Amino acid sequence: MKIHNSVEIIKKKRDGVNLTEEEVNYFISSYLEGSAADYHAAALLMAIYFQGLNEEETLYFTKAYINSGESVDLSFINKPKVDKHSTGGVGDKTSIILAPLIASFDVVVPMMSGRGLGHTGGTLDKLESIPGFRINLSVREFKEILGKVNACMIGQTESLTPADKKIYALRDVTATVENIGLITASITSKKIAEGSEGIVYDVKAGSGSTLPTIEKSRELASHLLNTSRKFGQKAMAVLTEMNSPLGYSIGNWLEIKECIMLMNPAIDDPIQSKDLTEVTLYLAGAMLKLAGKCNSVEEGIQLAEEKITNGKCFEKFIEMVEAQGGDTSIIKDIGKYPAAKFSADFCAERSGYIKTQNAHKFGSAAVNLGCGRKAVHHKIDYSSGITLEKKVGDKVNKGDVICKIYGESEAKVQHALSNIEKAVVISDVPVETNSKIIEVID
Amino acid sequence: MKIHNSVEIIKKKRDGVNLTEEEVNYFISSYLEGSAADYHAAALLMAIYFQGLNEEETLYFTKAYINSGESVDLSFINKPKVDKHSTGGVGDKTSIILAPLIASFDVVVPMMSGRGLGHTGGTLDKLESIPGFRINLSVREFKEILGKVNACMIGQTESLTPADKKIYALRDVTATVENIGLITASITSKKIAEGSEGIVYDVKAGSGSTLPTIEKSRELASHLLNTSRKFGQKAMAVLTEMNSPLGYSIGNWLEIKECIMLMNPAIDDPIQSKDLTEVTLYLAGAMLKLAGKCNSVEEGIQLAEEKITNGKCFEKFIEMVEAQGGDTSIIKDIGKYPAAKFSADFCAERSGYIKTQNAHKFGSAAVNLGCGRKAVHHKIDYSSGITLEKKVGDKVNKGDVICKIYGESEAKVQHALSNIEKAVVISDVPVETNSKIIEVID
Repeated sequence: MKIHNSVEIIKKKRDGVNLTEEEVNYFISSYLEGSAADYHAAALLMAIYFQGLNEEETLYFTKAYINSGESVDLSFINKPKVDKHSTGGVGDKTSIILAPLIASFDVVVPMMSGRGLGHTGGTLDKLESIPGFRINLSVREFKEILGKVNACMIGQTESLTPADKKIYALRDVTATVENIGLITASITSKKIAEGSEGIVYDVKAGSGSTLPTIEKSRELASHLLNTSRKFGQKAMAVLTEMNSPLGYSIGNWLEIKECIMLMNPAIDDPIQSKDLTEVTLYLAGAMLKLAGKCNSVEEGIQLAEEKITNGKCFEKFIEMVEAQGGDTSIIKDIGKYPAAKFSADFCAERSGYIKTQNAHKFGSAAVNLGCGRKAVHHKIDYSSGITLEKKVGDKVNKGDVICKIYGESEAKVQHALSNIEKAVVISDVPVETNSKIIEVID
Repeated sequence: MKIHNSVEIIKKKRDGVNLTEEEVNYFISSYLEGSAADYHAAALLMAIYFQGLNEEETLYFTKAYINSGESVDLSFINKPKVDKHSTGGVGDKTSIILAPLIASFDVVVPMMSGRGLGHTGGTLDKLESIPGFRINLSVREFKEILGKVNACMIGQTESLTPADKKIYALRDVTATVENIGLITASITSKKIAEGSEGIVYDVKAGSGSTLPTIEKSRELASHLLNTSRKFGQKAMAVLTEMNSPLGYSIGNWLEIKECIMLMNPAIDDPIQSKDLTEVTLYLAGAMLKLAGKCNSVEEGIQLAEEKITNGKCFEKFIEMVEAQGGDTSIIKDIGKYPAAKFSADFCAERSGYIKTQNAHKFGSAAVNLGCGRKAVHHKIDYSSGITLEKKVGDKVNKGDVICKIYGESEAKVQHALSNIEKAVVISDVPVETNSKIIEVID
């Protein structure tokens, strides 16, 4: 029986009956056309939140999203094409390094990223802190730059997966973001439509991730892999810990600056972030393996490390920024960037060892400082943010600066100080730190 | 903490946290004003569908619905005021008799009813089959007629419980009708705003009711009673069986005609419906008890029976129809009403005993015939419908007419015939019939 009725489809899912491919296609196309309204989609999404999507239904949604728009055809470039996707964290800036790093191996990285969401930062917002950097490119421009530079980092274009774009916006305002099937369809459809042949998923786990438990993160990883592979993509998933922020900085320009300090061999950074380097190199190793440039992740890590040390990665970064209209003089001389007007230090109230730097609370404090948007029309303060002078496991003496806060107003800085007070825990006994790489899911 | 954010409220309910009165008020008023959109409300309703509303939350919704509009003040009439509400069935026409019947005891019956929904018929549609009968009255007119006639039957006015009206319409198109908390708030808010001091709930159970199990019907009855009583109303609930249609007719004018034949002592109806009489009198007894006119339902039943036999009920019905602009000449001479253009007989394929007349299937067949609307703009055929010549338990011989179908086109009549074929089951052995009154919930 053909059910061509949005309410019947909502009812079916509400009652726990699996949807057919025809029903998913009917609903998605009705919603794009407008014959199904926002309220129909909102009710269906909440029913999906409770009843879930099984593997087949997730596949139907993914297909429907892809078929709602055009796909990028990169067959004219005779090179491997791989990408990385992170489920979102705090201080997570690996993409900024990975795109030029992998591109420097003559591997194409067609990277379509997102904006900050909730307490997590967004790669697009970070890139836009570079004066002139254009992330809204047409598919034609995207292909041109990929052909020339190997790497290009853009936002979701109007023409790619428009159904996902419309549904994603609705999920955000109807409390239906946190569903594994919907998350999977949204991510994989974009990663397939953008033209990648291989994809490494960085699935975050911990207090600063968007999923509540490690089991959920594992489940998501497995859904992502299965769905990608059904479309013929090579795929790998890495579970990484996101209890505390990744690296030393949170905030758009501050994070770009941290990446430049890591990539530019001319800068000798005494406090270079161990955890950021670890995660970035691991993901690079995985991407290089999928691209066929090495036989193991470990081998890939070594190759990647060389490209950073010899400056090839940084050269590629400058090349990419230039191709996308960004001001490379600021990339070459980070001191030129305007500093935030106000700053304050958050100091240790007592001596001990840093036990916790709650990523969720740090992320929210950064959003309040102006690093992210609380509503679509909000403007971002690119210079604002937080730098961590001490990381989890570090020994502190009373009065030591644990982090510095940068903002556009004294009030915002003071507000962030009180936020961060609740985010930091100091222990009397030494704190052991583990690798950020929890496990690889294959 | 004050949460003044619709998405946070949706998320809270989604996660199974009870909403506060402030949150319910905030959401309802935001939705009425337009600062919360249809999609917010759709997502919240579906979250409520899954997580339910507890007694307090149901009360908050009820209050918010009442406070969204005006309430009818009937304090100027120094008489008891009682009403009856049915949760909706097939062939359920008791309201048409009960309003004049109870009014003939000098008890005020301020009856605000609804239209047909799904497979069930609506009192308003039935009343509108009487030429000229006006159900869209202002509160002023409603009060005037109640002051003069004691009974008045109207539709939900714009000014009463507008929040319920808006949310009810949305529930219908988002598959969120079947939720006990939402049903309770919707019903009780209207019954309180209309000015009743006492209310008898006729909660249907069985295949033709809107709830799937008798347990759910019991649960609804208990929610209705508790909520009404919290507003100081006297309340009583009667569970009645709705596996087969009530009475001998389904369809708007056909049902009015059946009521007239029952009320008008001048008409000697040989096939007067036993089950309709039983349910109507029981509800009348309950209403009279709440109105303080008798000490027991049984005593009330006797009193009510007299008013039907002596024609006082029918006199009051004519008075009410006249006050609401209806053509009383047709009430007095039912033969004048235009008959449906086409008709057909559904006959017994074999001899035996009627075991089943599936109320849901009969109701749907009637809607398809034009007795109800499948979309808001559909016009109703007031003459169309079905009459049952045999009822459950009756003995039939092969070829006997089980029911007659009336419609405005040959095609519709033939379609209804095929629908009804699936609705009737004949058994070889005698079928026992029980009272339609399942239990009284107090």
